[in-house]
Amino acid sequence: MNSQICFEEFLYGGDYNPEQWLDSPQILEKDIEYMKEASVNVVSIGIFSWALLEPEEGNYQFGWLEQIIGRLCENGIRVFLATPSGARPHWLAEKYPEVLRVDEKGHRNHFGFRHNHCFTSPVYREKTSMINRRLAEKFKDHEGVILWHISNEYGGACYCPLCQDAFRKYLKREYGTIENLNRKWYTTFWGHIYDSFEQIEAPSPDGEFTVHALTLNWKRFVTEQTMEFAASEIRAIRAGGSNKPVTTNFMYNFNDLDYKKFGKIFDIVSWDNYPSWHKGHDYEKALDIGLQHDFMRCIKRKPYLLMESCPTATSWQGVSKLKRPGMLKLESMQAVAHGADSVQYFQIRQCRGGFEKFHGALIDHYGGNDTRVFQEAAGIGDDLKKISEVCGANVISEAAVIYDRENIWAMEDAQGPRNENLHYMECLLKSYGGLRRQKINVDVINMEDPLEDYKVVAAPMNYMFRGGFEEKIRAFVEQGGIFIATYWSGIVDEDDRCFLNGTPYGLMDVLGLRSMELDVLYDGEKNRLVPARDSDGEGAFACEYSCENFCDIIKVSTAQPLFVYGEDFYKGYPAVTVNRYGKGKAFYIAADADAAFYRDFYDEIMRQSGMMPLVRGSVPDGVEVTSRQKNGAEYIFIQNYNPGNVEIETDVYCGILNGYETIMRKRTK
Amino acid sequence: MNSQICFEEFLYGGDYNPEQWLDSPQILEKDIEYMKEASVNVVSIGIFSWALLEPEEGNYQFGWLEQIIGRLCENGIRVFLATPSGARPHWLAEKYPEVLRVDEKGHRNHFGFRHNHCFTSPVYREKTSMINRRLAEKFKDHEGVILWHISNEYGGACYCPLCQDAFRKYLKREYGTIENLNRKWYTTFWGHIYDSFEQIEAPSPDGEFTVHALTLNWKRFVTEQTMEFAASEIRAIRAGGSNKPVTTNFMYNFNDLDYKKFGKIFDIVSWDNYPSWHKGHDYEKALDIGLQHDFMRCIKRKPYLLMESCPTATSWQGVSKLKRPGMLKLESMQAVAHGADSVQYFQIRQCRGGFEKFHGALIDHYGGNDTRVFQEAAGIGDDLKKISEVCGANVISEAAVIYDRENIWAMEDAQGPRNENLHYMECLLKSYGGLRRQKINVDVINMEDPLEDYKVVAAPMNYMFRGGFEEKIRAFVEQGGIFIATYWSGIVDEDDRCFLNGTPYGLMDVLGLRSMELDVLYDGEKNRLVPARDSDGEGAFACEYSCENFCDIIKVSTAQPLFVYGEDFYKGYPAVTVNRYGKGKAFYIAADADAAFYRDFYDEIMRQSGMMPLVRGSVPDGVEVTSRQKNGAEYIFIQNYNPGNVEIETDVYCGILNGYETIMRKRTK
Amino acid sequence: MNSQICFEEFLYGGDYNPEQWLDSPQILEKDIEYMKEASVNVVSIGIFSWALLEPEEGNYQFGWLEQIIGRLCENGIRVFLATPSGARPHWLAEKYPEVLRVDEKGHRNHFGFRHNHCFTSPVYREKTSMINRRLAEKFKDHEGVILWHISNEYGGACYCPLCQDAFRKYLKREYGTIENLNRKWYTTFWGHIYDSFEQIEAPSPDGEFTVHALTLNWKRFVTEQTMEFAASEIRAIRAGGSNKPVTTNFMYNFNDLDYKKFGKIFDIVSWDNYPSWHKGHDYEKALDIGLQHDFMRCIKRKPYLLMESCPTATSWQGVSKLKRPGMLKLESMQAVAHGADSVQYFQIRQCRGGFEKFHGALIDHYGGNDTRVFQEAAGIGDDLKKISEVCGANVISEAAVIYDRENIWAMEDAQGPRNENLHYMECLLKSYGGLRRQKINVDVINMEDPLEDYKVVAAPMNYMFRGGFEEKIRAFVEQGGIFIATYWSGIVDEDDRCFLNGTPYGLMDVLGLRSMELDVLYDGEKNRLVPARDSDGEGAFACEYSCENFCDIIKVSTAQPLFVYGEDFYKGYPAVTVNRYGKGKAFYIAADADAAFYRDFYDEIMRQSGMMPLVRGSVPDGVEVTSRQKNGAEYIFIQNYNPGNVEIETDVYCGILNGYETIMRKRTK
Repeated sequence: MNSQICFEEFLYGGDYNPEQWLDSPQILEKDIEYMKEASVNVVSIGIFSWALLEPEEGNYQFGWLEQIIGRLCENGIRVFLATPSGARPHWLAEKYPEVLRVDEKGHRNHFGFRHNHCFTSPVYREKTSMINRRLAEKFKDHEGVILWHISNEYGGACYCPLCQDAFRKYLKREYGTIENLNRKWYTTFWGHIYDSFEQIEAPSPDGEFTVHALTLNWKRFVTEQTMEFAASEIRAIRAGGSNKPVTTNFMYNFNDLDYKKFGKIFDIVSWDNYPSWHKGHDYEKALDIGLQHDFMRCIKRKPYLLMESCPTATSWQGVSKLKRPGMLKLESMQAVAHGADSVQYFQIRQCRGGFEKFHGALIDHYGGNDTRVFQEAAGIGDDLKKISEVCGANVISEAAVIYDRENIWAMEDAQGPRNENLHYMECLLKSYGGLRRQKINVDVINMEDPLEDYKVVAAPMNYMFRGGFEEKIRAFVEQGGIFIATYWSGIVDEDDRCFLNGTPYGLMDVLGLRSMELDVLYDGEKNRLVPARDSDGEGAFACEYSCENFCDIIKVSTAQPLFVYGEDFYKGYPAVTVNRYGKGKAFYIAADADAAFYRDFYDEIMRQSGMMPLVRGSVPDGVEVTSRQKNGAEYIFIQNYNPGNVEIETDVYCGILNGYETIMRKRTK
Repeated sequence: MNSQICFEEFLYGGDYNPEQWLDSPQILEKDIEYMKEASVNVVSIGIFSWALLEPEEGNYQFGWLEQIIGRLCENGIRVFLATPSGARPHWLAEKYPEVLRVDEKGHRNHFGFRHNHCFTSPVYREKTSMINRRLAEKFKDHEGVILWHISNEYGGACYCPLCQDAFRKYLKREYGTIENLNRKWYTTFWGHIYDSFEQIEAPSPDGEFTVHALTLNWKRFVTEQTMEFAASEIRAIRAGGSNKPVTTNFMYNFNDLDYKKFGKIFDIVSWDNYPSWHKGHDYEKALDIGLQHDFMRCIKRKPYLLMESCPTATSWQGVSKLKRPGMLKLESMQAVAHGADSVQYFQIRQCRGGFEKFHGALIDHYGGNDTRVFQEAAGIGDDLKKISEVCGANVISEAAVIYDRENIWAMEDAQGPRNENLHYMECLLKSYGGLRRQKINVDVINMEDPLEDYKVVAAPMNYMFRGGFEEKIRAFVEQGGIFIATYWSGIVDEDDRCFLNGTPYGLMDVLGLRSMELDVLYDGEKNRLVPARDSDGEGAFACEYSCENFCDIIKVSTAQPLFVYGEDFYKGYPAVTVNRYGKGKAFYIAADADAAFYRDFYDEIMRQSGMMPLVRGSVPDGVEVTSRQKNGAEYIFIQNYNPGNVEIETDVYCGILNGYETIMRKRTK
Repeated sequence: MNSQICFEEFLYGGDYNPEQWLDSPQILEKDIEYMKEASVNVVSIGIFSWALLEPEEGNYQFGWLEQIIGRLCENGIRVFLATPSGARPHWLAEKYPEVLRVDEKGHRNHFGFRHNHCFTSPVYREKTSMINRRLAEKFKDHEGVILWHISNEYGGACYCPLCQDAFRKYLKREYGTIENLNRKWYTTFWGHIYDSFEQIEAPSPDGEFTVHALTLNWKRFVTEQTMEFAASEIRAIRAGGSNKPVTTNFMYNFNDLDYKKFGKIFDIVSWDNYPSWHKGHDYEKALDIGLQHDFMRCIKRKPYLLMESCPTATSWQGVSKLKRPGMLKLESMQAVAHGADSVQYFQIRQCRGGFEKFHGALIDHYGGNDTRVFQEAAGIGDDLKKISEVCGANVISEAAVIYDRENIWAMEDAQGPRNENLHYMECLLKSYGGLRRQKINVDVINMEDPLEDYKVVAAPMNYMFRGGFEEKIRAFVEQGGIFIATYWSGIVDEDDRCFLNGTPYGLMDVLGLRSMELDVLYDGEKNRLVPARDSDGEGAFACEYSCENFCDIIKVSTAQPLFVYGEDFYKGYPAVTVNRYGKGKAFYIAADADAAFYRDFYDEIMRQSGMMPLVRGSVPDGVEVTSRQKNGAEYIFIQNYNPGNVEIETDVYCGILNGYETIMRKRTK
């Protein structure tokens, strides 16, 4: 295994499915010609090729693949070689029905779609291991193959007896005794006490769906079981003699799996990015996507790959709009600006049939290179070559936001004050966006990550505190950090059991307050945040803002109110506070404040934190500034998400930035 | 069995789950201290304790319960002791899968949730009877136990073979022969003729859902079977030697069961009330809830219990808003004002985990008595003590509205003129609210209730006529009563078979008209009600009103038009009529008139009926007046549902009533 | 079989269910009296009578039917006699469960509803054949029986093992080898390659739903299997000795079946028409329904029957509004004006019970003939007698629109640029309405129909090209035809495989352009169509129009732009073009233009085509003109869909046309 992955230049390319065109050699030739024209230097292949690689059990046919890889290699195009477990062949499901998933009500699926395999089935593990090992044996020394693309977009779950049994084993390991489990799961509620592990079934809409700790543990188990399956795939690759790095492709804000845990089994993180642009202001979408990029980078705190993106419109969104001229490059450069070492597309050549036949591609059904999309893409390939020194550079951030999958699982499953909509992602993005607008890099981490390197940490709606998070925050503030918390924080432990004796748990002294009651507002209702009169100048806030959805009614001890509520029976009660603790400060935003508040709030945080922006000077709204560092150099990216031109006046660049344009400037430290 | 239930003071308390805190004796002690501070004198316990009371089959462990009851009793807190059938233990479902319900498609549920037991299963009946009898034997003479709380919120249905078989037996009993059933069910339609009772299956979305009489009888059967199950629970209590009264807790506008029938097996009615306040005008919600209170009281025509309510916000509503200061007391006093002899909460102490961990409680996770909620609740306990002489007083009404579960079942299942929305509850509430605004008490009864004691009876959208209802109405009007009918009345018999030869069936002479065609309006469409010109002064209506949804086109014989339609091809046709019949009058409201119409209409009805309001003078909008009587005294409640102060000028009280305030005045007759 | 069906007068009547009233002979007598009063001369009977005709297996009881038919016949009322397969008796399902359908997930339905039988089951085919043959033997020579009404509203599908097996046989026949199927279905995508036909399962939400060609072939199979079932029903009729014509009743825009194919097994087409009037402008609905009438007529290019319609309001629509006075006649005459030789209702007498007890009828529950509905209906019967010479006349059209079921199946199943809503029917109706407003007849055909007789053919959103459609269009234009195509045309072949090398496939030279990229707009977004400046006068368009949803970005070769886009990055690109090809012209409408555009566009098409309107002069908006021809005479219908009067000034009629009035004028050629 290559633990230090270093590409000499940005990888540029995408998913390629030559197996669909084996009867059209002229097309395969044309593909290579076009790829070269577009500066493509890498393709992912074999992702759904099992049925061709092993057309009947034990009959491996790798010849066509070898030939294709050979041709690519001769033409300077390297290969991410996939293991084919993402879609099993018909014969496998026909002969071993256990490989097909069982749904949450207990019915086994028919053959179909893609991700329809049991992740526990010994047969499926054996069959995937066998083909993976053969592939590794075959291609381990092939210079063209530079990385293993393990399976495809892992996700979903199986509820078959094998999985249920594995789940019980998981619980036994985690809880030891059934008494311990009952106590932590609080099964005295509704008298749902388990007499033995054998009675435990996975959550089901026609069975148990009311024990939140069961659901939470099931999700943890699904992550673990999926990881074990992935690990068995990787072991087979290693057993086949290959030590090339492995990755698997992740997805946007994906809730099935706790990706963070996968960092330890994969050598490099990669993900598939499919934003819907041109719906509202593009910069809002850019923040949303930027957060995911930063999350992917922070999984291993290293450069990552953009494994898939769409050269033009997708085929699966409700309305799959074309990308406006320039947007493809802007989107591609956003990945690079956040730490990606590749820009890759799904797909190189558009398939003639199948579920994704209208998904955008570098080469479409028309088949020419004189398309707008091909020409734009070729330009990107060219541009990436020009900045290849940036490849491998990392991102250093002084600020971080907490985005913790277990917290989300717990919060969204619980029956709580606002079952209709928690607006969690909006809340998270308001903090993330507030930080990003300070022209600084931002890390997106979870509760297990170390905080020492940060000056500012925001943990919006951190409902669950686990793993001593409150102690870590305490130490962080004590040592001078700025911590920002909000309503609905520190409510439950890792088994979704409520903390007693006051919340936010373990941080009431750090924050200088206690949450008394959480009011929620119906859709359309609002309250106001009014600057507090007797503020000691900490905040210096002059404007009023609006808030909605949540209004936490707090009782301050040592905290200083910065804002108070303007309406309702808690009018005049503190709504935003700050508390000095140790060498640092802890802010509490008690209500779901509007975006304007967050912008001004983080201006103030920036001032107080002493952080320096990546550029000095002013950049207009809708412009993102990020940087990567390597060998003492800092590469600063300035990206304009506005469709029209803007004027930039900064120390690294002064002048016009066209609509959707990116510029990069190098600064040597 | 104690058929004359008389509490000497208002019961105040709620559901209490000490089994969740057996490992925290200091919390159990604190609970008692706080309960005493809040004047709590009753708690419901054991509702979901089966798994603790019988941790393995036949191994009964009542010690902890006895100890808790003892401690409560020593501290002056009495107990409603529950039978634990609401949630069976795991071992029971594991050993006897027949106790789990089968869904309407024929699939047996997994273990989970709460109300997931077959109401026919002999095993389940046996096991519940055994534990109930043991509980009765143990606690029959305990002075602390004053009432049996049988199961919890009965509801739902099971479609297992045992239930299907019981359903067939029910039908044999009801219909005698299959020929009779076929004739009454009109199974010649679509040739669905049954050859034998054995062919009959419960309604199912993948089977028969088009025979309305089947669905209607299934619902009747579910009510009967649930009652039989409840009766078997009660028999076990009696077999155990306890003659203490029994109740079970009902729910708001609950459609699964015909609660009215349950009156005969329970000694006292109780229900669980969870309004969503502060959404629109609170008085509209108060009318909605008031109707349910009146319905619950009328089941046995006696005082009843408010078994559950929420001290603050629930956890299961879409948006669970906090109650504004004063609202908890107002809501509690509304129950008392409508005839309740208790105010009880779910829950005394908030559970740490489980599906309802965020449901409001007297003592929350924080655990102090210095919360807003605790302080308000303590005040209510105090207030109830001050008015304890009202306890046991009944409500006497001269007006009634018909709210008949079978009518609702039939109307909502039928394929009719407005499948999208019948707006039945709105229509019912317009009549109920029109009467309530007259400052009188109102009974909420069904078609089986006697009418002699009333001066005014309104039967909105009384689609089904059953049990000779039309004859009862005829006699009522003949003897001087005022009857108010609307469109979509007297359409079908008790088997949902249409009446021939004209509708409203049996009342065409009483009403002096016949319905010719029922027009329906699309959402957003309206018609107008224009005062009739040649009115003989009966109505003296001067204004126009709006109507929507339904416009019945009628042909009058002896009826006098009060309003005519203002639009459409039936412009000028009668829309509201009155007919003198015998010593009384029968009104017909042919269209879905707006609330303004109903207000003015009932002002006129009040004038014509000779009924006297409970108070003389004026009370502003949003103020409710009710009364209870006992031993020659009348206790008048005036409640202000406005958030702000209002001025009251009446014979019993003149002055200011604060926002959300209740006053009570005694008048000796 | 009577291949030349000629009724001497319009048939007038409807579905009649005397079996529901066998115990009320006075009602049966009254029915005949009323039917005669209303000029009813035909009824459909026996549709759901199986349970009465064969109350136990093999025990046929036709006596009651014979008696009813006899009585009807004596009174001049003829009979469409139904085969009873639409609803099987209980005993049949009980004894032979295989007759019940299995759903797409593999679960067998319970008994219930109507269309719940397997169309493959040998038992069901045998049992239906037996009763059909017996009925034929019994009534083959009965003068009262003039037509066989085969089953009722065929639809839906069964997924049982028998059907799955038949599906595989169908595929073997269609594709020969599994290799050929794999290639055409493009199963290399996601590696879904079938190893054998035995692996193929019907599409299922918990199995395969991503192979579009599978779904498409399943739909074709369902049509074929339903036809085979229908054919087996007809064979039994013939085997019973009857050579009377057969029909089955079709439905509005029905997507389950490709009705077009059924033309070859039925002697005459009939359909059931249930529009929702008075919701928006009635003329919009009239166009929608008119298209269906024209489609039904074009199935066999002969007069057809209106088998069912509602005399007043239905009971199954969301809001079942009454028809305004005059609308029933207008709707009935629309059928006649488009080529129907009958006007029939569901139902003659309203049933007392069952799922459709509130569905409108000639005779309602009240039971009198003094209702508005009866009187209007009697008037229609009278009117039809007066125009009986029109009966049998056909419709000759010079314009046609393509409405191809397979195209719709493929387009709506595919994952494409606008999964949320393709707006296909709206697009189709804009072309159809544009043509209709020219006061001409319009045919509604599919891709298999010949085009020689037309001057203008519009093929909106013709996503699939099959059966050499592009060659037929080429020849049509070459020979002088005017062809109108739109965006999203010529994209896939008959296996839903994309055409390579440019689209619209095979017509790029005929249209003089190629589609480059298809942009789609979010709901609410719009673009503009701006008249092209350098137009050579072809179009003479002066106004701007709006467009939405789809904006095809095209590259013209020989085409002349008539409009260009007014917004977005393709501003100035051609949006509507015309190309001269051979003796004809081909127009391309690249965007989803608004209705105003289509109106003006077809004014211009009319001018260029040289077609003559049916009437000269002007008719106002909301008036439809159609004609039928017979024996050298042309019968011109002018129908006013406005509720108010309009003035007509034409060569065939000048004067006032009342709201909802129809006039007919004869013109001898």
